[in-house]
Amino acid sequence: MAEGNALVSNIGQLVTNDPARDGLLGVITDATVAVSDGHVVWVGSQEDLPGEWAFLPEIDCRGAAVVPGFVDAHTHLAFAGDRADEFGRRLRGESYEEIMAAGGGIQSTVSATRAASASDLLAVTIPRVKRMMRAGTTTVEIKSGYGLNAETELRLLGTIAAIDDTLPIDVVPTFLGAHTVPPGFDGDAYIDHLVTEVLPLCSPHAAFCDVFCDEGVFTVDQARRMLLAGREHGLGARLHANQLAASGGAQLAAELGAISADHLDHIDDTDMVALREAGTVAVLLPGVSFSMQLPQARGNELWDAGVTVALATDCNPGTSNIETMPFVIALACVEMGLSPERAVWSATRGGALALGLEDRGHILPGALGDFAVLAHPSYLHLAYRPDAPPVERVIKRGDLIPG
Amino acid sequence: MAEGNALVSNIGQLVTNDPARDGLLGVITDATVAVSDGHVVWVGSQEDLPGEWAFLPEIDCRGAAVVPGFVDAHTHLAFAGDRADEFGRRLRGESYEEIMAAGGGIQSTVSATRAASASDLLAVTIPRVKRMMRAGTTTVEIKSGYGLNAETELRLLGTIAAIDDTLPIDVVPTFLGAHTVPPGFDGDAYIDHLVTEVLPLCSPHAAFCDVFCDEGVFTVDQARRMLLAGREHGLGARLHANQLAASGGAQLAAELGAISADHLDHIDDTDMVALREAGTVAVLLPGVSFSMQLPQARGNELWDAGVTVALATDCNPGTSNIETMPFVIALACVEMGLSPERAVWSATRGGALALGLEDRGHILPGALGDFAVLAHPSYLHLAYRPDAPPVERVIKRGDLIPG
Repeated sequence: MAEGNALVSNIGQLVTNDPARDGLLGVITDATVAVSDGHVVWVGSQEDLPGEWAFLPEIDCRGAAVVPGFVDAHTHLAFAGDRADEFGRRLRGESYEEIMAAGGGIQSTVSATRAASASDLLAVTIPRVKRMMRAGTTTVEIKSGYGLNAETELRLLGTIAAIDDTLPIDVVPTFLGAHTVPPGFDGDAYIDHLVTEVLPLCSPHAAFCDVFCDEGVFTVDQARRMLLAGREHGLGARLHANQLAASGGAQLAAELGAISADHLDHIDDTDMVALREAGTVAVLLPGVSFSMQLPQARGNELWDAGVTVALATDCNPGTSNIETMPFVIALACVEMGLSPERAVWSATRGGALALGLEDRGHILPGALGDFAVLAHPSYLHLAYRPDAPPVERVIKRGDLIPG
Repeated sequence: MAEGNALVSNIGQLVTNDPARDGLLGVITDATVAVSDGHVVWVGSQEDLPGEWAFLPEIDCRGAAVVPGFVDAHTHLAFAGDRADEFGRRLRGESYEEIMAAGGGIQSTVSATRAASASDLLAVTIPRVKRMMRAGTTTVEIKSGYGLNAETELRLLGTIAAIDDTLPIDVVPTFLGAHTVPPGFDGDAYIDHLVTEVLPLCSPHAAFCDVFCDEGVFTVDQARRMLLAGREHGLGARLHANQLAASGGAQLAAELGAISADHLDHIDDTDMVALREAGTVAVLLPGVSFSMQLPQARGNELWDAGVTVALATDCNPGTSNIETMPFVIALACVEMGLSPERAVWSATRGGALALGLEDRGHILPGALGDFAVLAHPSYLHLAYRPDAPPVERVIKRGDLIPG
């Protein structure tokens, strides 16, 4: 990716997330940021700009608010088909069993994805990523997991790599072969198959290994085996945990020192302490609770317990057909009850930490030059305008992304 | 406004809302609609198109779903300023009293609006209406009510008329002088003032009179007096009713045969029967409940009781900074529990009936040629994509609206 140079100027309100500055968001008013070779080299008040940076190509923010580019740390956005029909059935009151009998559920996405060629997959995935980018996401994690066999999981990881090569966004690939148990296997046999046949082929193309550890999916023992095998192949551990029930996933994530435990809709105080002590980031996904008409996770209690909290879209066709981080911020505020400050931090620095990316999600010297320039004077508008895109321009590594 | 001619062709799924066809939405697959002089002249299966319409200029929908243009029957979108700061304070847990002490609430919008010139008001209002239009709204009701004096209420109604003249959208103007009691008056004295001084000046520029009848705002007796005076000046009656409490507004709307009663968050079975018997449309505003973190109105019970239900944005800077009907449809499904079919009908035909506009909100001969062309094969995508605009093109009176 190109490494641009820019003087991002006339920023009315700059969210730095710099802990050396005041408040959670480290806000500077009337700020300027200098970006050289894709990285921030200077941040401060407009009037203090050193002369050496004054001649960088200027991106004039005309008094608008600027936040770090969003880091979306949990998505399943590489898939074929859609599940609008299933969504409609659920809204009309049909049961889970009726929906499955009508061909719904994750297996319908697996079938559509297995039937899609690499170029088909890329063609449907690129527009999704472009919508995310236009809304301010500059780094995105993408999981495989709609293949459930070696051939299709590899094709998905190839699609994810192609997105990274094609678009001006950083992509973090995660291997989620253990997304669900496919027909013809039981859980143990499928984990055997993944560990011996699929993981060795897929691990060179992924940074993390993930498992859907929950009631009716994979057990704690199965998830442990998968994540340890992933670690032997060089993959960091992350985990779908405690979404459907108090199924032990959060404790497993802490036990393994996983970088993140995601969902966490059913956790208790002991789980929170374990996550904090392990330094595991809690990735919360308010779009799922919204879409599935369920209560939101206990975001403020996790914050208050000292757990690092990230927000992400969980973009997927079944339970969160949501692509944009500003909408996730609005949901986190309005439905989960986070303050705008906690929500904005979690969607930027929190997401970066959930992916182990120290160099982004904040704006200070050495960080990537990734920014979302709002159409408004304050970051509050991210929560205040749930259906009017509040992001006007996006800067990735110092370069303006073409609209 | 221009009256266009078009052959809207290759419609994969057409929502007609025609009661003579099957189901609530009267869906036709593989449909074509002929529009002449701005009005629908023929609707049917592609293959049955009479030769006389085959030479109209074609708008090829390429298999997408088409719904009637949305009718947004309740907005306050003519205002200056914003209330992002107040929104942030509320999310951080500040009390109503603290927010008022910090200069929040409706009076802050009244102050900003009084200070804005007619051209200022038009400049901030037009982008809002354009965003609504791009999302498929082809008819919008706009209320005055942030002036609370004759001069500013007139300026607001002038702005509303200018929107109607400037943009390819039909605007229905409502006089809402009785939006709240301004400083220096009590409720009775302010109604006196409105009836004797303001209404005679404003009524030539409005189609309806509205009152915020609720606990702490205007009483049932004050609202009755205002609406009857409005009727003497030729204005139809509509009413903000039972939003904050069971304050008698729904019964008043029924007693007066008002065309609509809006909000209705606090109603009982007796209110529902009264509305049904009076033929008063229930205008529900799920964006307010979402934004204010309150329970949604009992939409399905109103439907089941035989009341005509409409959905609208209530676009306003304090309690529903929401502009687009697809997002309202998504909220009505996910949060209020309406089926996608009830939600789509209420956002189209329901809205038309709430404004007394028989000629729109459905697609059959004689109706206006107003359509939202989706980017997807089914109307289900209106609910399924809360943050990805599902409307691709909008047709107003037979003419494509420029993107």
